[in-house]
Amino acid sequence: MTTAELNQIMELMKQGGPDFKDETGKARSDFDQLLASLPVDETLEFETRTIGGIEGVWLAGEDRQDRVLLYLHGGAYVVGTAFGYRSLAANIARAAGTSLFSPEYRLAPEHRYPAAIDDALDAYRGLLEEGFAPQQIAVAGDSAGGGLAAALLVAIKDAGLLQPAGAWLLSPWADLALTGETVVSKADEDKLLDAPGLSKTADDYLNGADPRTPMASPIYADLSGLAPLFIHAGSAEILLDDAVRLAARAGAAGTSARLEIGAGLFHDWPLFAFMLSEGRDALAAAGGFLAARLDAAEELSAVSEPLDA
Amino acid sequence: MTTAELNQIMELMKQGGPDFKDETGKARSDFDQLLASLPVDETLEFETRTIGGIEGVWLAGEDRQDRVLLYLHGGAYVVGTAFGYRSLAANIARAAGTSLFSPEYRLAPEHRYPAAIDDALDAYRGLLEEGFAPQQIAVAGDSAGGGLAAALLVAIKDAGLLQPAGAWLLSPWADLALTGETVVSKADEDKLLDAPGLSKTADDYLNGADPRTPMASPIYADLSGLAPLFIHAGSAEILLDDAVRLAARAGAAGTSARLEIGAGLFHDWPLFAFMLSEGRDALAAAGGFLAARLDAAEELSAVSEPLDA
Repeated sequence: MTTAELNQIMELMKQGGPDFKDETGKARSDFDQLLASLPVDETLEFETRTIGGIEGVWLAGEDRQDRVLLYLHGGAYVVGTAFGYRSLAANIARAAGTSLFSPEYRLAPEHRYPAAIDDALDAYRGLLEEGFAPQQIAVAGDSAGGGLAAALLVAIKDAGLLQPAGAWLLSPWADLALTGETVVSKADEDKLLDAPGLSKTADDYLNGADPRTPMASPIYADLSGLAPLFIHAGSAEILLDDAVRLAARAGAAGTSARLEIGAGLFHDWPLFAFMLSEGRDALAAAGGFLAARLDAAEELSAVSEPLDA
Repeated sequence: MTTAELNQIMELMKQGGPDFKDETGKARSDFDQLLASLPVDETLEFETRTIGGIEGVWLAGEDRQDRVLLYLHGGAYVVGTAFGYRSLAANIARAAGTSLFSPEYRLAPEHRYPAAIDDALDAYRGLLEEGFAPQQIAVAGDSAGGGLAAALLVAIKDAGLLQPAGAWLLSPWADLALTGETVVSKADEDKLLDAPGLSKTADDYLNGADPRTPMASPIYADLSGLAPLFIHAGSAEILLDDAVRLAARAGAAGTSARLEIGAGLFHDWPLFAFMLSEGRDALAAAGGFLAARLDAAEELSAVSEPLDA
């Protein structure tokens, strides 16, 4: 990351960064505008598909159409769309060698908790109904979508379904109670997020539910028995401790967990992979991880199939 | 890891595992016996060399003799030898594609704090005197040697020397005050280490120094400006939180930090790589990381050389 790259990104954010404390709905249109300013590879043929009753963005895989990434976009549960995030979602699906389904899960305040996690689980069930086996599915998400992805793994376990092959969580928001040390210690360094803004969106989403509700704040969930996790966070973001605690608690619960903290990097930096080498590096590492987990799950299921038959 | 593999390892540990609470010096001979039972590749031509005034184990690299791994062995600062750990040290050096120097740093209680960190820093200075540039050196260590490796990076910074290319810390003991949550929560699961034993060896090493002394317990050090870290820990060890806090604090301080928590794995499991696929996986990942960091440091120095000339 050069200073020039960082300054350019900060300019973009200043123009379009959402003010979550705004009450007029302006945050959503500002954020859509920011997302629309990100370049999209024109050769990619995105489709609109409804899977599990949830409409979303679909992109067929280049090589392995029998594998799919379920991608949950960010936006603090109140802004953002799968369509707006399709560039990031396509980048990680391409790096993992899979097709992509990114659902337009319902947003607050119109649709409160548990609408988002219900929709995410419906999308996962929908992929199973489409014929994907759990070991052919990877899960990923950024920011609120990263927390939602972790909660989805817990919901999958609680529903008695099999886990997907693996999950990548980018800068996950995993504690809506905002109790992480870095919420305070990184407040000056983080130019994108602040506690009052997140606190308002948490209230909008939770609708009176306890902010430590495990399905909204997965650091409080039983994280045993989940698919292997790969978590990325930047050193310059207030949600760094969400990533650390999610990795630590999942690991302590016996779930395989990998954490990478990028020096000097800000919330959700791979969104800017088109201009930021650190973003491309993170996507390559995450794609390699998911592909390896899908390969390992495929091998395991090939071994176990004769027994199941 | 199969149950058979785990049972075999537990048998080995039961026969030779050191009782750190024993006052008769029996822990050291028991531990040497355990280490001697680990197989060593007979084709490797280990030498004894003295570098920076510290005698140690040397193994010439196969490909890149201009790169070296400085390896610091484990043993709670009171037992173990570089010679006894040469198999693990050689495995990681081979995986990283480097030569190896593993110093016989002085042990407690005969040689108290700061003997070990002094010797480690002397060995690093010695490698510089031998003609290795910092960017041609990687650092690694396990258990107490992992904590010592982290402290070494801080000592290198404090001495005004340049950082090495990167460091791998396996199951590091990074808090001699034993304040990690997992010291309690993993006490039943961990069959190899216990708090009373570690507390005694900490006393033996510290000789009255504060157990939060940053050079003995690097989680309390200023961890900014260090070489990129890759930290491995198992979910079944009481030192898991040492690894988590070291990664979290280094990352928060702006040092690039990667943490992997291995599901169901015990303290220092890559010592048993000869019989444990998870050990070989960890060595391959760590070797790949160190090789990539050495490559990146080489590229950077090639770019900057004309400016320095």
